[in-house]
Amino acid sequence: MSNDPLVIFTPSGKRGHFPVGTPVLTAARQLGVDLDSVCGGRGICSKCQITPSYGEFPKHGVTVAKDALSDWNSVEQRYDDKRGLKTGRRLGCQAQVQGDIVIDVPETSQVHKQVVRKRVEARDITLNPSTKLFYVEVEQPDMHEPSGDLERLVRALRTEWDLPELFADLDLLKTLQPILRKGEWKVTCAVHLEDRRIMQIWPGFYEGSIFGLAVDLGSTTIAGHLCDLATGEVVASSGIMNPQIRFGEDLMSRVSYSMMNPGGADEMTAAVRDGMNELFAQIAEEAGITQDLIMDAVFVCNPVMHHLFLGIDPFELGQAPFALATSEALNLRAAELGLALHPAARVYLLPCIAGHVGADAAAVALSEAPGKSEDLVLVVDVGTNAEILLGNREKVLACSSPTGPAFEGAQISSGQRAAPGAIERVEIDPMTKEPRFRVIGSDIWSDEDGFADAIADTGVTGICGSGIIEMVAEMRLAGLLDGPGLIGSSEQTGTTRCFLDGRTYSYMVWDDPERPITVTNRDIREIQMAKAALYSGARLLMDKFGVDSVDRVVLAGAFGAHISPKHAMVLGMIPDAPLDMVTSAGNAAGTGARIALLNTKARREIEQTVHNIHKIETAIEPRFQEHFVNASNIPNAVEPFPILNTVVSLPDVTFNTGGGGGDTAGGRRRRRRG
Amino acid sequence: MSNDPLVIFTPSGKRGHFPVGTPVLTAARQLGVDLDSVCGGRGICSKCQITPSYGEFPKHGVTVAKDALSDWNSVEQRYDDKRGLKTGRRLGCQAQVQGDIVIDVPETSQVHKQVVRKRVEARDITLNPSTKLFYVEVEQPDMHEPSGDLERLVRALRTEWDLPELFADLDLLKTLQPILRKGEWKVTCAVHLEDRRIMQIWPGFYEGSIFGLAVDLGSTTIAGHLCDLATGEVVASSGIMNPQIRFGEDLMSRVSYSMMNPGGADEMTAAVRDGMNELFAQIAEEAGITQDLIMDAVFVCNPVMHHLFLGIDPFELGQAPFALATSEALNLRAAELGLALHPAARVYLLPCIAGHVGADAAAVALSEAPGKSEDLVLVVDVGTNAEILLGNREKVLACSSPTGPAFEGAQISSGQRAAPGAIERVEIDPMTKEPRFRVIGSDIWSDEDGFADAIADTGVTGICGSGIIEMVAEMRLAGLLDGPGLIGSSEQTGTTRCFLDGRTYSYMVWDDPERPITVTNRDIREIQMAKAALYSGARLLMDKFGVDSVDRVVLAGAFGAHISPKHAMVLGMIPDAPLDMVTSAGNAAGTGARIALLNTKARREIEQTVHNIHKIETAIEPRFQEHFVNASNIPNAVEPFPILNTVVSLPDVTFNTGGGGGDTAGGRRRRRRG
Repeated sequence: MSNDPLVIFTPSGKRGHFPVGTPVLTAARQLGVDLDSVCGGRGICSKCQITPSYGEFPKHGVTVAKDALSDWNSVEQRYDDKRGLKTGRRLGCQAQVQGDIVIDVPETSQVHKQVVRKRVEARDITLNPSTKLFYVEVEQPDMHEPSGDLERLVRALRTEWDLPELFADLDLLKTLQPILRKGEWKVTCAVHLEDRRIMQIWPGFYEGSIFGLAVDLGSTTIAGHLCDLATGEVVASSGIMNPQIRFGEDLMSRVSYSMMNPGGADEMTAAVRDGMNELFAQIAEEAGITQDLIMDAVFVCNPVMHHLFLGIDPFELGQAPFALATSEALNLRAAELGLALHPAARVYLLPCIAGHVGADAAAVALSEAPGKSEDLVLVVDVGTNAEILLGNREKVLACSSPTGPAFEGAQISSGQRAAPGAIERVEIDPMTKEPRFRVIGSDIWSDEDGFADAIADTGVTGICGSGIIEMVAEMRLAGLLDGPGLIGSSEQTGTTRCFLDGRTYSYMVWDDPERPITVTNRDIREIQMAKAALYSGARLLMDKFGVDSVDRVVLAGAFGAHISPKHAMVLGMIPDAPLDMVTSAGNAAGTGARIALLNTKARREIEQTVHNIHKIETAIEPRFQEHFVNASNIPNAVEPFPILNTVVSLPDVTFNTGGGGGDTAGGRRRRRRG
Repeated sequence: MSNDPLVIFTPSGKRGHFPVGTPVLTAARQLGVDLDSVCGGRGICSKCQITPSYGEFPKHGVTVAKDALSDWNSVEQRYDDKRGLKTGRRLGCQAQVQGDIVIDVPETSQVHKQVVRKRVEARDITLNPSTKLFYVEVEQPDMHEPSGDLERLVRALRTEWDLPELFADLDLLKTLQPILRKGEWKVTCAVHLEDRRIMQIWPGFYEGSIFGLAVDLGSTTIAGHLCDLATGEVVASSGIMNPQIRFGEDLMSRVSYSMMNPGGADEMTAAVRDGMNELFAQIAEEAGITQDLIMDAVFVCNPVMHHLFLGIDPFELGQAPFALATSEALNLRAAELGLALHPAARVYLLPCIAGHVGADAAAVALSEAPGKSEDLVLVVDVGTNAEILLGNREKVLACSSPTGPAFEGAQISSGQRAAPGAIERVEIDPMTKEPRFRVIGSDIWSDEDGFADAIADTGVTGICGSGIIEMVAEMRLAGLLDGPGLIGSSEQTGTTRCFLDGRTYSYMVWDDPERPITVTNRDIREIQMAKAALYSGARLLMDKFGVDSVDRVVLAGAFGAHISPKHAMVLGMIPDAPLDMVTSAGNAAGTGARIALLNTKARREIEQTVHNIHKIETAIEPRFQEHFVNASNIPNAVEPFPILNTVVSLPDVTFNTGGGGGDTAGGRRRRRRG
């Protein structure tokens, strides 16, 4: 047994004997303990802070004497004077081992620290960014052993940091010589580790941060999150409307635009890239940094957005067999895409799963990890196109289903985007058939005192996506709407709120003479189609998996966060499941982008995962149409929904008097597809 | 022993048994025989032509029957009708083995064919270009197994051609889908094998060629050679003046320009790149191709040109310790350098050996391979800056020496560039001291009949570099010039051609009243300085190598081709050696560039070689100055030149009468350096 002092690190539990005088950082490195350092032990960066513990440690079998570490030294004193060192902390590169010692590495001193996600059930992100800072001292040129300045810099990075052979772009080469001399051969380098590229160098020790962007490029909005690559912290977030909207609201209309207009695809590519740069400028300003400090960016998007962003005509995505130009993950340079970030910035696009199931679905798979779930989980990303994943540790299936924009309030007579004044919560009294509701921006229900005051500024302006889901479900629960989706007449329902409105009936929600809010039977049809598309996709995956039920349902997408599980289930939008097993994952695609940005290992993971996901193309599955027709009923013409039936009781009403009011969702869908 | 027929390939001698019906191409591939094919055996490309041999082959122990191969088939018939197949040839992919057979693979059907160099002593180039053509049939998209078009293309290239995972630029992705469909899923790909990148695809079988450029970027001229990458053949060559000349004739004046003028380096970068593009356009036009078929380019140049071409300020190269920004070989994209080639074209720059010994010297090392020489060889690339290599299998040393422009006819009173009318050959009668000479453009000596007619068009316009070397050497041999470099008076020399010309004497070569051609003592001084610089560099390397003589001398550079070995040795420009051991390598740097272009293995070889070359910096070697002073004498103040003395006898004359005519080269050099 060694007579050298025993050094024990917590929380890793790694331990070893080291000669007296060994710096704690050196001991940590030799044991492979995750202790950060940018300056390589020169007492400059203060990243290697540790907390020594003294006294008896029966668990570790050691007693730590008061003098187990060397005394506080002048470097630590200087740092403490300048910046303040937390009580009990030492600089790992300065404190030297003198006797047996137990050393705790605080979370903030770990390179691969955990970045905590806000949702309780979500996994934390292990920090492992593409680009890190390294401080080095470079050998000066020697005429007897001539070598390039770059080669000596690369050698220093290899010797001091054990980095592989690195390369540099021409832009860096142009600045290299003056910076090395300005820093007197001491420089800080930002190194892209995967690409083995020196991104930038600063003379001396660079005290600032470097950043990365996680971007969720949606058909409607583009959202970006700026992260500090050393801490994982989101330092700014912002979003803009996708400027491509002027070429078409939904994906297929944009594909059509490019088919009908020569150069149309290029126009849309330019528009989205311009929008992106506008967003980046906005985010950088919010964070108070310059855009050239953004060295890495990760993008998630659906296949059409993916192709248009890359400058590829999405023509093939508009028709079977929906062939992607490329489906694998892409590593590009920001400059190739015309993005105004650091001149050498790298860009990563997650892989696409199939022609209809894009990198956004891959990002959801990364965030929600159905393939790591013990129980069978259905993940539904609700949008104009729903991406659906079903799986557990055994296997994962995926498909997409064209829900259309109804869930976003479009094509609904009183529909609107989620904004103050929009109805978001609804209850209908099953006895009186009277509605009560709440609007965005107020916590007061419409039948409570103070409601008029609360909405004085906004008024009641319409119904947002989650509101329309609750509205339709409540109408069904109150017996105003039958299973096939017909609104009853005032006679059939016993309320004058149901009124003849053309050939069918409508329900009066808010009887404001200036701005009445009603639900028409056509609105019901739109919702039926949207929810039937979603359900039949999920049901198809269940068929393929060989199950009739799922253990839990995760609703992803910003919209998913606002959906009431009970109402969604009454509508038959999602399969029958215990209500507390239906949760929201928020913007899971955006989270997936952030995970891929902060942890490059997660990129390899999702690339592998995507290969293992089994894709189902709804368009060529004969049972899809059958499921769709069944799912047009509310909740469903054939599925029993036994768990739902223990929670609610659906009135057994039928309003079709046989008079040919057969404008069913299924019938309309067939016509539209024809 | 197998009962299957025996197939023997020549010239490789590879042999194996194959079942009846095996196509010859298949047999060749399985045996690793170098038999070309672009279409993968589909009878389209005709690259796999072979010549079967019939009859008795005691050497191989086989008898080949007339029916040892299957009959001529319709594919071969169609090819023969269309293009004509040489008598005796078969298509290797069509002809099937029926019995024991001997098959010759002609040179033109080998992938790694030898590209023959013109010089007898030069090694051939084994063809192994960066970029090759491959024809493939791609699987069509399948909705049940969705994958990107690119991924299926890459898979086809892997399956059919055993290529590794390949990547594509965005530009290619943009064109991929329509081209695959236009070619009905049959395409030809140009693949950069080192960069694992699909450069371009063509629908169907592409019948054309792809090209590469070898560029020798000199301070004065830029020369380019366009090569067919499949045959190695030079299809066009051209040269232009380096447009940087307007910023300074020599390297140091360009470095000064960038130091004195803010943005000066960028101006020079733009100038050389513009010039390059002009050259490329010129070469492409000459070859009758479009520039976008040029997919690879290799550049050799000295360090200052190297930095200016890359856009790096050469400031550091103008002062000790002459630090290069980067010395390793560079793999770049042509687009980064603003070069108008194929949009995805790659560029390779050979490594630099040291701050004064550039990629051009590396190219000379690649072409002349001193490190592979059994005997000790001195390679001298004569230019305004001479690069000198000394070595054998044991080791190689390198240095550069600033010879200045005198060898190019500059700074010589009657000097001129090599052009019609310039004196290139000289003899002086040692008895009469009368000169006779020949000018460029005529084979008639000046004392022969018909000379006047022969030069009627051009006149005698001056003395070119090789002419001035012969002139000075002949003056020394004829006793007109003493060892220290003084021209004698007419009294001392006995000829009135020597005349007082200011403080010193000059020699009248061509007494044309309108355009007399003389050699002044100042001209002698310039040549003394230039040759002393060259010799002392070589001598320094010999010191370092521990030798006093070399086995052979190779003169590289366009100018080197015209130098008379005897005269160079009389001048003491090169070390003493048997005259037949002094040879010219022509433009060895350009040849090195061509080798690196056509054989990527040679790139790895020179990168390794350069690491092993030991660099000597003349500026910090104390003995260099001593060698220089000694070498200012003609041929040398201390070196005996014993072999030269068996060929010529140098008159022992001294013209310094002690009158203080001490304007020696050494003295002037010291003043200039001070």
